Amino acid sequence: MPATDSHCWVGVDLGGTKILTGVFDANLKLLGTAKVSTRAERGLDTVCERIERCIREALESAQCKPAQVRAIGVGAPGAVDADRSTVLFAPNLPGWRNVPLGRRLARALDRPVVVGNDANVCTLGVHEVELRAQPRHLVGVFVGTGIGGGLVLNGELYEGASHTAAEIGHMILEVNGPKCGCGNRGCWEALASRTAIYRRLREAVDAGEKTILTDWLGRELEDLRSNELRKAWHHGDKLVRRILLQTADYLGLGIASLVNLLNPEVVALGGGLIQALHAELMPRITETARARIMPGSERALTLLASRLGDHAGITGAAVLARRALEAAPARTAKVKRA
Amino acid sequence: MPATDSHCWVGVDLGGTKILTGVFDANLKLLGTAKVSTRAERGLDTVCERIERCIREALESAQCKPAQVRAIGVGAPGAVDADRSTVLFAPNLPGWRNVPLGRRLARALDRPVVVGNDANVCTLGVHEVELRAQPRHLVGVFVGTGIGGGLVLNGELYEGASHTAAEIGHMILEVNGPKCGCGNRGCWEALASRTAIYRRLREAVDAGEKTILTDWLGRELEDLRSNELRKAWHHGDKLVRRILLQTADYLGLGIASLVNLLNPEVVALGGGLIQALHAELMPRITETARARIMPGSERALTLLASRLGDHAGITGAAVLARRALEAAPARTAKVKRA
Repeated sequence: MPATDSHCWVGVDLGGTKILTGVFDANLKLLGTAKVSTRAERGLDTVCERIERCIREALESAQCKPAQVRAIGVGAPGAVDADRSTVLFAPNLPGWRNVPLGRRLARALDRPVVVGNDANVCTLGVHEVELRAQPRHLVGVFVGTGIGGGLVLNGELYEGASHTAAEIGHMILEVNGPKCGCGNRGCWEALASRTAIYRRLREAVDAGEKTILTDWLGRELEDLRSNELRKAWHHGDKLVRRILLQTADYLGLGIASLVNLLNPEVVALGGGLIQALHAELMPRITETARARIMPGSERALTLLASRLGDHAGITGAAVLARRALEAAPARTAKVKRA
Repeated sequence: MPATDSHCWVGVDLGGTKILTGVFDANLKLLGTAKVSTRAERGLDTVCERIERCIREALESAQCKPAQVRAIGVGAPGAVDADRSTVLFAPNLPGWRNVPLGRRLARALDRPVVVGNDANVCTLGVHEVELRAQPRHLVGVFVGTGIGGGLVLNGELYEGASHTAAEIGHMILEVNGPKCGCGNRGCWEALASRTAIYRRLREAVDAGEKTILTDWLGRELEDLRSNELRKAWHHGDKLVRRILLQTADYLGLGIASLVNLLNPEVVALGGGLIQALHAELMPRITETARARIMPGSERALTLLASRLGDHAGITGAAVLARRALEAAPARTAKVKRA
């Protein structure tokens, strides 16, 4: 075991298209990162090898040796049994069902590994590193292709009866609203994610409305990213502005529901859309939400855009690793040796 | 202090129109009840005197002496600071703002008194007495004039940052839906409470639709209670059936949102509407909810109608009294003597 002042934690953000890894010192200061594509379509073995490669590259960039790593945390997309570090089901990782990812990586890397749900892990990162574990109750809202969430209640990550809590993207906000990827109608993520923005833009373009985005990306608007939405906003594109403000309203309404339900000290927003557009959208999101929150809960609330941005996942995964090892060394060690 | 086998707990359910009190033995078996009207319009002093009277009558009916009472719990409508047993604000009790109800009653009755929010208290009663404290995570949904709720998370009542959590009636379910008493649009209680049923019935009658209810109650449908809705259902009244099934669907949709968010073991429904109509509505509520809950959370869920009925409030208030005294005798004693 290396001396305390030289050990490090590794956080892995496993996504459907890319893997991002960060190496952190004992105080969770980021020392180095690496990124590789996931290649999920090539199957489980390939993804695991690519996670290992990404960790090696991050350690090199941080100038750390593998022996300095005390533990590795992974945020994985989908339903995760955190007690067993097993991915139960991941819609964006084809074929992943009941994958004992923690045990597998621990064996390959000879280090303790813990795995959690990606949005939970992001929320943990915001709570412990950005907010210094101050709020007793925090709701994390991560807006990208979908809307993911995490809940810290009474200072601890809340995972529910079967590790599937915080599916905030599937709160119903409009009973007869647009179809969601989950099969229901009017889910929050069908109304307020980048997918929802894309759908509204396509419908408007099909109806003959104009936007600079078709000049940049073609009529199909393929490969639309949050950065192009920001550029179009600042270009004064009326359609984009209207649709983004409508989306901000839906974000505010969903946040109001969450706050009326959970009365947290802090709601922290993150994810690609917020990272790219927080300056443009947060005032409207805040205004819409606050107007609909019950007075007692409204006064208690801080609503903010996380500054961790892209690094929320790796930061939270490193927190997860540290917590697991400090709280229950026996459990993590068992994962490693099993 | 009386011997353990002869002491009792008192639970008070303080409502806007009536006060119900129950006296319970050491094992929370109900020994006797009493009911008086609240007379909220006559102000705070009158209401406090009537609570005292109701407690005396309940003790008589239970054949208990005041000295046998170890503590009194009160469920009060509105926002309650449970740490200080203070009613912060109660929309149905005119003039009640920052009322130190616990201290006041403790002084008058010379017994420890604790006060909590009514829907929280009902949830506590269902959790501890009906469900024998089995579920780690329970959502209580009480449907009457409005929709109140309570959350037991990790085995403990969850009250949020400022004691205003679980305002489940003000989750937004339909962005441009009907106006709610809170000023917003499309809140759950504007879509699925008895108030919502009444509004739909009135609109239908005004539009010329027929219902047996106008024969029984007149065109204004004043004094419509849940029991009349049940009678009209069994009379085969088509309008009433259609509106009740629509309401059941909205109840199911809101429950789906709550379960996707909190992944509880149990959702327990109660309140006047459910008490009167559980046989008629629970199948439809359950079907609609389960179809919209994410698979992992759906498998973990038991959805039931509480059998405590009208007694959920007094039972939970007695639980509150017992918990407060057993968990923190110093705190409750302070309330008593302050």
